[in-house]
Amino acid sequence: MTETRVQVFKTARRLLTGYGASAQLAAEAEDLMMKRPLIVTDKGVLGSGVIEPILERFKHDFADSTSLYSDISAEPETHVVEDCCHSFTANKCDGIIAIGGGSAMDTAKAVAVYIGDDRKLEALFGEDQVRTRETPLICLPTTAGTGSEVTNIAILSDVNAQLKKGIVSNQLLPDVAIVAPELTVSCPPAVTAASGVDALVHAVESYLSNFSTELTRPLSLRAMTMINKSLLHAYENPKDMKAREQMATASLMAGLAFGNAGVGAVHALAYPLGGRFHLSHGVSNAVMFTEVMRWNYSYCRSLFLDIAYALGAPQTLIEEEAGDFVVERLTQLCEQVNIPKTLREFDIPKEVIPELAESAHGVTRLLRNNPRELSVEDIAAIYTAVY
Amino acid sequence: MTETRVQVFKTARRLLTGYGASAQLAAEAEDLMMKRPLIVTDKGVLGSGVIEPILERFKHDFADSTSLYSDISAEPETHVVEDCCHSFTANKCDGIIAIGGGSAMDTAKAVAVYIGDDRKLEALFGEDQVRTRETPLICLPTTAGTGSEVTNIAILSDVNAQLKKGIVSNQLLPDVAIVAPELTVSCPPAVTAASGVDALVHAVESYLSNFSTELTRPLSLRAMTMINKSLLHAYENPKDMKAREQMATASLMAGLAFGNAGVGAVHALAYPLGGRFHLSHGVSNAVMFTEVMRWNYSYCRSLFLDIAYALGAPQTLIEEEAGDFVVERLTQLCEQVNIPKTLREFDIPKEVIPELAESAHGVTRLLRNNPRELSVEDIAAIYTAVY
Repeated sequence: MTETRVQVFKTARRLLTGYGASAQLAAEAEDLMMKRPLIVTDKGVLGSGVIEPILERFKHDFADSTSLYSDISAEPETHVVEDCCHSFTANKCDGIIAIGGGSAMDTAKAVAVYIGDDRKLEALFGEDQVRTRETPLICLPTTAGTGSEVTNIAILSDVNAQLKKGIVSNQLLPDVAIVAPELTVSCPPAVTAASGVDALVHAVESYLSNFSTELTRPLSLRAMTMINKSLLHAYENPKDMKAREQMATASLMAGLAFGNAGVGAVHALAYPLGGRFHLSHGVSNAVMFTEVMRWNYSYCRSLFLDIAYALGAPQTLIEEEAGDFVVERLTQLCEQVNIPKTLREFDIPKEVIPELAESAHGVTRLLRNNPRELSVEDIAAIYTAVY
Repeated sequence: MTETRVQVFKTARRLLTGYGASAQLAAEAEDLMMKRPLIVTDKGVLGSGVIEPILERFKHDFADSTSLYSDISAEPETHVVEDCCHSFTANKCDGIIAIGGGSAMDTAKAVAVYIGDDRKLEALFGEDQVRTRETPLICLPTTAGTGSEVTNIAILSDVNAQLKKGIVSNQLLPDVAIVAPELTVSCPPAVTAASGVDALVHAVESYLSNFSTELTRPLSLRAMTMINKSLLHAYENPKDMKAREQMATASLMAGLAFGNAGVGAVHALAYPLGGRFHLSHGVSNAVMFTEVMRWNYSYCRSLFLDIAYALGAPQTLIEEEAGDFVVERLTQLCEQVNIPKTLREFDIPKEVIPELAESAHGVTRLLRNNPRELSVEDIAAIYTAVY
């Protein structure tokens, strides 16, 4: 054995989970020496009332020194980052707290590394272009979820270039992630469904990734089991706190896994749907999920057997049956939570499939993680199958 | 569900694993802005030659600005921490790198938080007495292992008081842990055996702990499987790099698990053996392991079934058979790697058992994690059974 094979597992230094974890926010902010935090959230979360108790507590602990920025759009644009930075500076803030879905967290992560950098925001896009982060950062997801609270990437929309762009840097990893189920109870069923399936995609794709590791694999598998058991409960009964807790923690675990092992073809094929037709990240992943799994199966049979067991297959199931079991179970789960099944439902014209395929084929950063190599023709065939 | 149940998972921000990982040390030290690192190691490691390549590389990357402190004893004493601190200051160091077993790492962790603190070392003992850590810290274990590279505790011997004392603080968590199998190849078979069984104890006790979490349990189970498959290979063929790699990574995973879920009665009963009769941490845990498991079994049958599967039991095994299966497999494994079976073999007089039991019963910090409550009489009976 002379070949080196170094694997890095990186994460936030502290991960808080479980019902009631959001009440720890003030203490964590104080530990990070925040005196004047900026809370970054979106209007939906603000309107839902779930963060009222947090803001109340903050008024008590931080007097009148807390600022609020809630001008976050569904797909955060670069100018929002600039705007949020102005707010940070104008209010003399010294720390950032994101409370929201992927958009609020990604904006907050970008702001945290852009503050104090004298370059233009554009200079930060790409891999490892960030110099440092001196502003403490805490993330609290309100969906389960994107896993953004433990990943080193922030995705922003460049309106001028009509492109999604990513900042990739370990400096984006927050100091603390607080994954509190009580923040997800007001999440509407459709968002619960899409983000829950998205978390399941993270778990499955990270397990299948060519870059999975000993540390990521057990987290992926356990996350699958938890989501498989809890998603429908959280969808049908939004106040089921036990199901919300399982979904929140599973989303975090899937985030830890894919944040280190990467995701694959489902994400690569979902990207152009979001970029061009503005499907949300969760929905576009969910639509592509089962068909990509059908394509992957014969290239990694033993991994699919592990996934089948994690999704509740009997131990008598054999490798030859695993692919069908997984695809059937995923299809059933997506149906139960009313995930759209076809691209047709989004008014996507069939003629654009070749363009979508070209575009997806260019996402080599993700396709290289996938167990099966996919040609442009393969990708077009997958889009056609779900049309 | 109104009861809060917040769980914290804390760790080093970056964990490097896999063959060749030690070659990344210089880059990681640079990322932490170290200019004049102090390398803390022990004479055994220094004599074994495994760190020669690292020191060579360091001479290249850090010119003549690296200092070395190797005066570490098997059970590090408080005065060693003072001494190492003097060395750090005298050499104008700005970062600490531990390369060694639990003793070197615990010393380095203590030094890292003691530097710059104007109080006496005694002030840091106990829970959360550390104020801050400004000195960057990297840990590289040379055994698999103590898991000390990802735990928030440093155990030191106070020679005057004839006691072991712990500093417990999240500030002790290093910035980076580099768990490189190539650093463990020179570990002698007896140490490979004792530290390997110690890692298995960490995995099993953290899984049984009353404070295990969704994040720790999959790591514990996977670590058990890896150790069960690899320990004998690493013991019988020290140069088997694949087995060394599995053991090193499994020890890290068990460390992540017990660093957050805690350990239980095995550790509590092992403590007095180390404190009074100077058995090493690994050996004393290994001696108590199977008997404590026999006592725990009937209090957590379903958990033992999970452990049995992780240790290779057939899926046809039922809950009623799990306890015997686990105890038998652990006994067999300990025999295969020649772990002493009885306290008698260490010239411990039988008359001291009541005192040992009193002493172990006082380790409430660990006993409260154990699934079965143990009285002083229970503990004496366990010591008697392994006498």
